[in-house]
Amino acid sequence: MFNFSYQNATRIVFGKDQISELAHLVPKDKKVLLIYGGGSIKRNGVYQQVVNALAGVSFVEFAGVEPNPAFETLMRATTLVKEQGIDYILAVGGGSVIDGAKFVAAAAVFNGDPWDILAKGAKVTTAVPLGCVLTLPATGSESNGNSVVTRYETQQKLAFSSELVFPQFAILDPTVTYSLPPKQVANGVVDAFVHVMEQYLTYPVNAPVQDRFAEGLLQTLIEEGPKALAEPENYDVRANVMWAATMALNGLIGQGVPQDWATHMIGHEITALYGLDHAQTLAIVLPALMQQQRATKGAKLLQYGQRVWQLQHQDQERLIDEAISHTRQFFERMGVPTRLADYGIKADAVDKLVDKLVQHKMIKLGEHRDITPEVSRSILQRAL
Amino acid sequence: MFNFSYQNATRIVFGKDQISELAHLVPKDKKVLLIYGGGSIKRNGVYQQVVNALAGVSFVEFAGVEPNPAFETLMRATTLVKEQGIDYILAVGGGSVIDGAKFVAAAAVFNGDPWDILAKGAKVTTAVPLGCVLTLPATGSESNGNSVVTRYETQQKLAFSSELVFPQFAILDPTVTYSLPPKQVANGVVDAFVHVMEQYLTYPVNAPVQDRFAEGLLQTLIEEGPKALAEPENYDVRANVMWAATMALNGLIGQGVPQDWATHMIGHEITALYGLDHAQTLAIVLPALMQQQRATKGAKLLQYGQRVWQLQHQDQERLIDEAISHTRQFFERMGVPTRLADYGIKADAVDKLVDKLVQHKMIKLGEHRDITPEVSRSILQRAL
Repeated sequence: MFNFSYQNATRIVFGKDQISELAHLVPKDKKVLLIYGGGSIKRNGVYQQVVNALAGVSFVEFAGVEPNPAFETLMRATTLVKEQGIDYILAVGGGSVIDGAKFVAAAAVFNGDPWDILAKGAKVTTAVPLGCVLTLPATGSESNGNSVVTRYETQQKLAFSSELVFPQFAILDPTVTYSLPPKQVANGVVDAFVHVMEQYLTYPVNAPVQDRFAEGLLQTLIEEGPKALAEPENYDVRANVMWAATMALNGLIGQGVPQDWATHMIGHEITALYGLDHAQTLAIVLPALMQQQRATKGAKLLQYGQRVWQLQHQDQERLIDEAISHTRQFFERMGVPTRLADYGIKADAVDKLVDKLVQHKMIKLGEHRDITPEVSRSILQRAL
Repeated sequence: MFNFSYQNATRIVFGKDQISELAHLVPKDKKVLLIYGGGSIKRNGVYQQVVNALAGVSFVEFAGVEPNPAFETLMRATTLVKEQGIDYILAVGGGSVIDGAKFVAAAAVFNGDPWDILAKGAKVTTAVPLGCVLTLPATGSESNGNSVVTRYETQQKLAFSSELVFPQFAILDPTVTYSLPPKQVANGVVDAFVHVMEQYLTYPVNAPVQDRFAEGLLQTLIEEGPKALAEPENYDVRANVMWAATMALNGLIGQGVPQDWATHMIGHEITALYGLDHAQTLAIVLPALMQQQRATKGAKLLQYGQRVWQLQHQDQERLIDEAISHTRQFFERMGVPTRLADYGIKADAVDKLVDKLVQHKMIKLGEHRDITPEVSRSILQRAL
């Protein structure tokens, strides 16, 4: 196990009817920005529950944070925070809204051009405190310090990370996910699954607690994901998916172990060029990356096949083949196709995507930094 | 899954040579109480590492916190904190030292008689901030808000719990555990194992993440515990035991699920009357309790036997028998006997212990509150 330093101070308030806890969680003496996305929270009743719970709290609303939140949109929210003297942010939505709120929290009190936080990795030294109500289990943003923001005018999708933008609290009420479109449910399960894999499928460092936690989350997503599609109002299923997605990227399972975020990096380029959903790109890249990297990831691929899929072949290569094919089938069963061709993307895309990776300096990816542009090209060819 | 609210803000600083991080973790502008137990930290070099890292920090020492820390001792430390104007506490030791430091942290700024915190459950509304360096993996005290204190003059072993006494940080350097006596290593593994069982072995509430995390910790302790005895300076083994023991009682695996702390409660009486080590009492009580409660715990006993011990009998009763016997054998393999007779305690103890349970109002224990004094009697008879 590697050395690590880990803190996660987000309070998780989990369960039915917990949005009313906002009355105790949001400080009464603060002026609050209530930030959210499209109109779904108005249709499904979440908005009204939030407003009811904020009785007695002074708040201003900012609506319209889009999926893959736009720098331009968030800068408008930042201006609002400054103009209105807002000193607390409440994000209500999925990962995009929460990611966006984190950027606003940092940008509003940043000394300089907030773009530098994303483009130059300028250090965040203070931030407006924030809390959140999660409506879509997927990204883990509700209890981590990560934020991804897109600047559409320059086609840049950039990230920053800071302990100062961990939400102080996250309310997770599984019932609010009942009304999600099946596609978003499926995307969320795939996203969470791949988050776990990127902290797990590397090489063994004798870290059995982390391995078994990761395997437990994968097994849970495999069991519960299809049920969430089949029985949208099964509370336990929704609760298990929600808790697994949070645990998948709250940092815990990745402590002390190597990580490989190449799937996300390659996937980001597919979204940027072809507009696919984030999770769709992950479902395309991961099986191809597993196949391409089967030698360096061999020990963990065997462990994954044996423990997560209960495969028992004597022939190790065959076991790895089946582990990869089970992974692909799981994504397909969730309704997320796993080939570029399934989305109408043809072989000429490979060069374009590799060029973008080079342009964005994504030239040494993976736990061994051995996923060069040529390796990425092979991965993409395997994904056609 | 039940509703829950969970926050654990302790920063874990894990790994080799991490005690030097105290230089960054302890605020320079505070006056610090360095509190520890016997002399072991002076013999094994931990004391010197701590003092070196505290260069430039003003600190006062308080030595002599005993195993099962004494109220009387801790009140002397509390007086010192008040007299010296101390505003930060650094605990260096195992669970007893950290538990003791938590009580001092609360008692030193308590408005009233600090005994009421333990005896009357008086609410802790403020506490001196504290951090810790863990030297013995076992209790999980390094990242929870629990504290157990004994008042020897009245033979009372009492607990309190407050989010205000969570350590702000916990340094976990596995190398400092190399020099632990084998008995303490074994006791620590048994203690951590039973902590997991008490949050796991109840009845199913469809919480697969919590179940699998618990099972992963149990499997890790089963694999690594005996190795820690056989290879005291195997870093990975020590690291895995240390991380598993912290995760066993930092609150995470117990969120949203029923719990049964009867083993601890019955065990406390054995320690109080006969002076056995805490872990010895757990090793005695748990197998007997599993046998006694095998009907109400049946579903989880089967799951435990199948998943943790890979048992596969068709006959469910036989599978449960083997799961219990494997548990007992594991404790024995760790060198911790599992029968009262092994410690020279005879059948006449049963009545005395049940009387103590009644006296302490421990009359409805277990996840169903069905472990009445008569059931406790049966458990103790099975433990003879």
